[in-house]
Amino acid sequence: MKKQRIAIIGASGYTGAELIRLLLLHPYAEIKELTGDSQAGKPLGEVYPHLAFSGLPDLVPLSNVNYADIDVVFCCLPHGTTQEVIAGLPKHVKIIDLSADFRLSDIEVYATWYGHAHKAPDLQKEAIYGLTELYRDNIKSARLVANPGCYPTSAQLPLIPLLGQKLINPDSIIIDAKSGVTGAGRSAKQANLFTELNDGMSAYGIGSHRHAPEIEQGLSQSAGSEIIVSFTPHLIPMNRGILSTIYVTLAQGKAVDALKDCLHKTYQDEPFVQVTKNNPPSTHQVRGTNLCVMGVYADRVPGKAIIVSAIDNLVKGASGQAIQNMNVMCGFPETTALMQTAVFP
Amino acid sequence: MKKQRIAIIGASGYTGAELIRLLLLHPYAEIKELTGDSQAGKPLGEVYPHLAFSGLPDLVPLSNVNYADIDVVFCCLPHGTTQEVIAGLPKHVKIIDLSADFRLSDIEVYATWYGHAHKAPDLQKEAIYGLTELYRDNIKSARLVANPGCYPTSAQLPLIPLLGQKLINPDSIIIDAKSGVTGAGRSAKQANLFTELNDGMSAYGIGSHRHAPEIEQGLSQSAGSEIIVSFTPHLIPMNRGILSTIYVTLAQGKAVDALKDCLHKTYQDEPFVQVTKNNPPSTHQVRGTNLCVMGVYADRVPGKAIIVSAIDNLVKGASGQAIQNMNVMCGFPETTALMQTAVFP
Amino acid sequence: MKKQRIAIIGASGYTGAELIRLLLLHPYAEIKELTGDSQAGKPLGEVYPHLAFSGLPDLVPLSNVNYADIDVVFCCLPHGTTQEVIAGLPKHVKIIDLSADFRLSDIEVYATWYGHAHKAPDLQKEAIYGLTELYRDNIKSARLVANPGCYPTSAQLPLIPLLGQKLINPDSIIIDAKSGVTGAGRSAKQANLFTELNDGMSAYGIGSHRHAPEIEQGLSQSAGSEIIVSFTPHLIPMNRGILSTIYVTLAQGKAVDALKDCLHKTYQDEPFVQVTKNNPPSTHQVRGTNLCVMGVYADRVPGKAIIVSAIDNLVKGASGQAIQNMNVMCGFPETTALMQTAVFP
Amino acid sequence: MKKQRIAIIGASGYTGAELIRLLLLHPYAEIKELTGDSQAGKPLGEVYPHLAFSGLPDLVPLSNVNYADIDVVFCCLPHGTTQEVIAGLPKHVKIIDLSADFRLSDIEVYATWYGHAHKAPDLQKEAIYGLTELYRDNIKSARLVANPGCYPTSAQLPLIPLLGQKLINPDSIIIDAKSGVTGAGRSAKQANLFTELNDGMSAYGIGSHRHAPEIEQGLSQSAGSEIIVSFTPHLIPMNRGILSTIYVTLAQGKAVDALKDCLHKTYQDEPFVQVTKNNPPSTHQVRGTNLCVMGVYADRVPGKAIIVSAIDNLVKGASGQAIQNMNVMCGFPETTALMQTAVFP
Repeated sequence: MKKQRIAIIGASGYTGAELIRLLLLHPYAEIKELTGDSQAGKPLGEVYPHLAFSGLPDLVPLSNVNYADIDVVFCCLPHGTTQEVIAGLPKHVKIIDLSADFRLSDIEVYATWYGHAHKAPDLQKEAIYGLTELYRDNIKSARLVANPGCYPTSAQLPLIPLLGQKLINPDSIIIDAKSGVTGAGRSAKQANLFTELNDGMSAYGIGSHRHAPEIEQGLSQSAGSEIIVSFTPHLIPMNRGILSTIYVTLAQGKAVDALKDCLHKTYQDEPFVQVTKNNPPSTHQVRGTNLCVMGVYADRVPGKAIIVSAIDNLVKGASGQAIQNMNVMCGFPETTALMQTAVFP
Repeated sequence: MKKQRIAIIGASGYTGAELIRLLLLHPYAEIKELTGDSQAGKPLGEVYPHLAFSGLPDLVPLSNVNYADIDVVFCCLPHGTTQEVIAGLPKHVKIIDLSADFRLSDIEVYATWYGHAHKAPDLQKEAIYGLTELYRDNIKSARLVANPGCYPTSAQLPLIPLLGQKLINPDSIIIDAKSGVTGAGRSAKQANLFTELNDGMSAYGIGSHRHAPEIEQGLSQSAGSEIIVSFTPHLIPMNRGILSTIYVTLAQGKAVDALKDCLHKTYQDEPFVQVTKNNPPSTHQVRGTNLCVMGVYADRVPGKAIIVSAIDNLVKGASGQAIQNMNVMCGFPETTALMQTAVFP
Repeated sequence: MKKQRIAIIGASGYTGAELIRLLLLHPYAEIKELTGDSQAGKPLGEVYPHLAFSGLPDLVPLSNVNYADIDVVFCCLPHGTTQEVIAGLPKHVKIIDLSADFRLSDIEVYATWYGHAHKAPDLQKEAIYGLTELYRDNIKSARLVANPGCYPTSAQLPLIPLLGQKLINPDSIIIDAKSGVTGAGRSAKQANLFTELNDGMSAYGIGSHRHAPEIEQGLSQSAGSEIIVSFTPHLIPMNRGILSTIYVTLAQGKAVDALKDCLHKTYQDEPFVQVTKNNPPSTHQVRGTNLCVMGVYADRVPGKAIIVSAIDNLVKGASGQAIQNMNVMCGFPETTALMQTAVFP
Repeated sequence: MKKQRIAIIGASGYTGAELIRLLLLHPYAEIKELTGDSQAGKPLGEVYPHLAFSGLPDLVPLSNVNYADIDVVFCCLPHGTTQEVIAGLPKHVKIIDLSADFRLSDIEVYATWYGHAHKAPDLQKEAIYGLTELYRDNIKSARLVANPGCYPTSAQLPLIPLLGQKLINPDSIIIDAKSGVTGAGRSAKQANLFTELNDGMSAYGIGSHRHAPEIEQGLSQSAGSEIIVSFTPHLIPMNRGILSTIYVTLAQGKAVDALKDCLHKTYQDEPFVQVTKNNPPSTHQVRGTNLCVMGVYADRVPGKAIIVSAIDNLVKGASGQAIQNMNVMCGFPETTALMQTAVFP
């Protein structure tokens, strides 16, 4: 297969580095350009010592990229800065955007949650939401894919099928999510210092996290009615991983086994989604991998069930799913470069 | 005040060590005996290097203790082994039992959850549940206090007042709890090795954790009706701390502010319970202390609220509350030896 | 005893917070003023959530302090900014400076290592180096104490007596030191993010760390000849603690037991220095305490010995020793507020 | 190339799991048998949840393996139990032994350090020490390779060339090594619990660690004289990684640059050894990889140098180097299955 020439825009953050880690094993991808305006001119090994031996080019300013030589762009810029950049890209490049800028199809909802008007509303109409297992057919022919958020990936993969088959009530879904610290990015912030986070934990963004509307968008579409979820994220002293513990009410007359069956059937042929029968999913099972591991458990409270879902926020929750989407868009085998086993311990 | 002479039975576990740490600063307590059958004869510094310089006596077998010289016994034996030991203690000693053996007033419930008949049913009737802030009056005159479990302490302190005042519905309480690893004890188990737990997390005991009936006992009594809670614990890569994120439904016509007011009023004069107004509670705020820090937050879902409660599982969740109970039982100022500030970072 | 009225200048860093934690238990100290120019006006609980319930005053600008009401100043400002501030303090206050600004008695050495001329050379002559156990007599009558650095405390406590008694060679001392991350301070730096440090480690400042000349000053003075040491610090993924592994050559005709005897005799009456006979010292033994635990071990290489020394960098390596010095300067029992047992686990 | 059929003996430990992780990406290897006597009959996913989705067979007892179908055996049994097992294997299989049982060519030295006579002295003569970069030619034709220990790999890779070229003195080498906890294995031991190791550190095995004679064997052979090293390991609260900080004395008339040149030239064509010019090596750079990253630094003490060497103890220090050796023994490209980029953060 013809190699795709890749540009990673905003390569100095964690999702950029993770794209590099995975693409270095991709037989049909060649990393041509890495941009990072604030770090432009620096060797990659100075920005990321673990990539010092990769043989990759120095970081360049965004304006330096010659898109005539690029087939696929991964865009890892911060939320709010991406819409204009992508609007300016030539039409021949395929784009996977890892920011939140194209994830919300309703630009009013975007404006409400992100505090400013959408800057590329026409492009928004073209963007395909890249939750690969569930929207694969649309992704195949997409030019612009909005790569899902990490929490939304972990929550939607189990919930969308269950809502679609009317197995759970749409009005009492509670998502208690726990994330590793890479989800907070690489910016220097006192709150994210080792000393501030090690050996302790807390909730944050209670009732106000921007991933809530993204989750609700997918769930509402599947349920056919507007859903509001309770979503509370927590920051855990670990590098990678999201564990979502989801509390649901069974639909009238439905049993927990029906939920298990639904997820098992939905995902039985999917290489990256595993429905576990035994032990509750652990983030250890997915570290460094593109897997989502999920399990369904009966609650002691009659009529209730508990769903646990684990991903690596940097892989299935970001860069791995982005490559999975590239594979779909380019016609490569979907698992290319993504079949690594979890790094444990 | 007259010094109490203390025996710590089962001193080789983490709650025993934590009792020692705190009692060494107690002006009215003198540690006379430390037992530990499997470690008997060893200097304390071999069992616990951080206590090597404390000047305390070696561990002795349980059978060696001369209770004529003992006023107060802290019992830190494993669940299921404690009832018979305590039944054999002379009547003049005050006892605070840190195991679960006397926490469930209904011995049928005990038998169901612990897998064997209660071995001291008469003594059970005498035991007072030691959630100090809520049952202080009974504790004052108690001879045997059943010290609460760690998860139950974190959950009951906010929920019992709210249920008592009918501010929340009794039938949809969900407790998503996260614990540090000291809660798993000091026994050598592969599952608790550093390498198995570091940098990752999972849920455990879904729907089957033995602290569920203990929580339900307190909540049911307060609500005046039988309550079943959804309770899911998680193991977090940190040493100490429990954070309980509790999802509740407001009672008809009640607002979130009423919950805040209730907790504020209930605990405004309590030195060890802090109702925070701003940032969500963090386990960092309570590490090494006897504090419970709690906050109430409006959910995005109308009619719902989120309560977050943080304690140090070894202090307010075990040894600190045990000393608080001793202080109450002995007529000492309740805060004696318990006013340390959190060790942060 | 009369309470000393305390001002902590630069209270928003980790050493400031640790002073507060310890002083809150000090019966003869009353915290009157906390300064922090960049955080002035903020409640302490916003700057340090774990101090939210301490009842202490808000942070004020440095210029607001009325020294007429202050007896003792702890100065926690950054290196290089302290000399002028302290030069401007009234003469009646006792000062313990936790920065490096007055630690090097030779102002030329200071200028070489800190990159600028000393700004208060007269005051330097007055400053007493506050390694309490070794310079106690001078500290008693000091007005300005230069509190030692963390690495220098861990290295000098064992090495100064050994050199003073000519038990080891002065020309081949190697100090391989490992530090927790609090040593790096609370400033927001990418390199100190949780994600950059968790689950990995490295050396830093090889051959160029500013604590080298401070160590050499004390060792040279004790040996009576100029000593250059090999000193390599490492950053370890833990909050607190310094472990120094020190490689020495025995002086001609001396045995390892002589080193042990020397340290044992030197420190046998010191409450804060423990010479351990068995297991190698661990940072767990000293966490949250003012202890230095040290041990001496025969090397397999004939004529060589290995010394291990552990402290909590924030306590004996900073704020605890500062309070110990205050106790000496004020005539309080030296252990006041410093007898807490290690927080383990 | 023809696929090699693999048996992993003792697959239930960390080195076994790491072999599986890496071999699953090996195009010329097929895992046929996994043995684990104590866990025989269990699905692999019960022993290692992160391998639950690998499609590999259940663990079987060692006695069940039919070697007629096996080409290569990786032996991951404990030290002391391996010699007899390997002596009983048929001659057609290639063997890479990850234990210490065949690493010491002098069986008297083995007996001294391991406490019992060598049980297969004839086989010892045949065994080739598998430090791949330095003994590649012998490995090519070996039937039995003794895979090096983790600390010895990190220390010998830089030191053997420097000693061979007489650039450093043989008589004053000090190796201060820091290891992640996976090096301690997966057995349930109280000392290795999360709670005992998290957020603290200590030295262990001072002057008595069994890797000392292994290091000395390689160094002595290179220097042409018997070398005794000072070797002190430390246990660091991280899962993976060894960092060795090595203190050496320059040979008469030699400069630090000569050491750098030597290592640069020795390893310039080696894909798995990187001599870094800038920042000190970090274990983060090698996590999950087969790399050894090393750097040489001038000490402040004249005539001394400091060498820092980092590996992942489970990869280059165990299973990765084992596969590298298999690749050499089987004529596969040496980097096969070993070119993964470090997992960071």
